[in-house]
Amino acid sequence: MKTIGISEHNLSILNNVNGSVMHALKKSDFGFSDFGEIYFSNIKYQNIKAWKRHTKMTMNLVVPVGRVRFVFYSEEKNIFEEYIVGEKNYNRLTVNPLLWFGFQGMDEGKNLVVNIANIEHDPSEVERKDLMDLKYHW
Amino acid sequence: MKTIGISEHNLSILNNVNGSVMHALKKSDFGFSDFGEIYFSNIKYQNIKAWKRHTKMTMNLVVPVGRVRFVFYSEEKNIFEEYIVGEKNYNRLTVNPLLWFGFQGMDEGKNLVVNIANIEHDPSEVERKDLMDLKYHW
Repeated sequence: MKTIGISEHNLSILNNVNGSVMHALKKSDFGFSDFGEIYFSNIKYQNIKAWKRHTKMTMNLVVPVGRVRFVFYSEEKNIFEEYIVGEKNYNRLTVNPLLWFGFQGMDEGKNLVVNIANIEHDPSEVERKDLMDLKYHW
Repeated sequence: MKTIGISEHNLSILNNVNGSVMHALKKSDFGFSDFGEIYFSNIKYQNIKAWKRHTKMTMNLVVPVGRVRFVFYSEEKNIFEEYIVGEKNYNRLTVNPLLWFGFQGMDEGKNLVVNIANIEHDPSEVERKDLMDLKYHW
């Protein structure tokens, strides 16, 4: 039951002898609202970046390299939701604003998160908590 | 002398003990026209994907993983241009339509090309040639 403002979309991978092509996001896709900025976050094996929330940004998250555990928390509903995506479960997550989130590297090699955001980076719409401020069994 | 319709833009990398954050493209950046689609191409070590050209698409190419050699060819000017970008020379290439291009994986590990394109994939605006149809010493 995914109820707190996240949708998950399966993406296709086209195999090629020289290296695969991996879809990420088209402007006509469900979950696309506007383009503001795209950036990458590397997350090391077992390390966790948490917690952060955006008050305005809708994120579209894709993991083309490695495997990443995402945890989201709705303060309003007091519910956590967890998703593991990456090369093996190649899905895009569309994440509404106002959800707390953190993520953890799950592969021993590189883990790369791509965020296609509907607005440009703006520190005034970012809130942070320490990892221990929200209790979750990672 | 870069004259055939390509511009190169230095991007920043923010280091973090849990993994770096790598900028790619903001809508206010020079080189951004419109958002149509984003997709990823893996290219294996020493392998080459060539030649292709788009008659309408402007590409913004970023290599957050590994290192990739891009070769562009202007039929009009009969000029080749070569760029090597990746984690070590972390630049974005903005590529006008009508240039032939090919690319080669330069790292023994993974090489990942991110294309932020101003239109969605449309096979009617893609032209192809065999690798041997344009002579280049890779």
